[in-house]
Amino acid sequence: MKKSMGAKTLLMPTPVLVIGTYDAAGKPNVMTVAWGGICCSEPPCINISLRKATYTYENIIEKKAFTVHIAVEPYIKEADYFGIASGRSVDKFSATGLTPVKAEFVDAPYIKEFPLVFECALLHTIEIGLHTQFIGMIVDAKIDEEMIAANGFPDVEKMKPLAFAPSIRDYYSFGKVLGKAFRIGKQIQKL
Amino acid sequence: MKKSMGAKTLLMPTPVLVIGTYDAAGKPNVMTVAWGGICCSEPPCINISLRKATYTYENIIEKKAFTVHIAVEPYIKEADYFGIASGRSVDKFSATGLTPVKAEFVDAPYIKEFPLVFECALLHTIEIGLHTQFIGMIVDAKIDEEMIAANGFPDVEKMKPLAFAPSIRDYYSFGKVLGKAFRIGKQIQKL
Repeated sequence: MKKSMGAKTLLMPTPVLVIGTYDAAGKPNVMTVAWGGICCSEPPCINISLRKATYTYENIIEKKAFTVHIAVEPYIKEADYFGIASGRSVDKFSATGLTPVKAEFVDAPYIKEFPLVFECALLHTIEIGLHTQFIGMIVDAKIDEEMIAANGFPDVEKMKPLAFAPSIRDYYSFGKVLGKAFRIGKQIQKL
Repeated sequence: MKKSMGAKTLLMPTPVLVIGTYDAAGKPNVMTVAWGGICCSEPPCINISLRKATYTYENIIEKKAFTVHIAVEPYIKEADYFGIASGRSVDKFSATGLTPVKAEFVDAPYIKEFPLVFECALLHTIEIGLHTQFIGMIVDAKIDEEMIAANGFPDVEKMKPLAFAPSIRDYYSFGKVLGKAFRIGKQIQKL
């Protein structure tokens, strides 16, 4: 028997995404969001949602660019801190000792120490309600060489990305590999 | 040293979302997508991206409504199958033996056997490229009573949601709990 929980954002997992931007004066800032993901394969696009009150919102409106990092276990405290503190009152790079690097193709900084980052150019801005959704075209994905697996893709075991359950606010590691998409369902197709 | 991977959709994890719709004749259909997530807290909204060629795309345009289920381990084969087969040529409910139930508040069906489902009313349609993004307002979230934990939220351990890594097309289980959001970062804030 199903029980109504009301109109709640209990969807899971969400990714844990660290957004890099410059402000009008060129100060680098980073902020963590859980409302985001991939929204198009061609052109490859990432969507992120932000409240208007955030420093990052202003920066994206100003610069039309941002970076998106996958938060990983070795930097879980830093990633969480980036979602608590505001770039308006602190320099989050100084506070964490992490290193801002100018992105290659867009006017935004990325964190040198984070293993996987996407450089994004703003494509669409959608006003939804409390959150504004920014859709950015992925111009490039950059990865630490030692995080590339033999198959040429990011090595999930080594990189240790975070997953998030918004309801209970828990960060999770990835667990076991359960199967291949577009393959294990074929057993049903053949019935 | 960072290596450029090109403009690739390597972001992870994504959720594994099963979308329920009726076609114009009232036939229930389900389809699995990985491009989606939460995009607004108030009103609570889910975004999903679909190719125009899909049956579900037509159905959402027609009915302005859809449901979103969290795919879970006990139904991993069914969830994968829903992403392979097309509702244009098969009845996916008959093929899997799962049960369509009319949603309470919107004109869309949900899968009785799936533990957590969101009823969504279409709010925005954004043409991006290969994919079209639909933003649906969550009208209600419904959960199997036995999946509610003592804290009143979905019991992640019991429900066993899937996570997805699009690059390598692997389905993952959730792993260990690593910490609480908005809490573990405070150690840095106090430095």
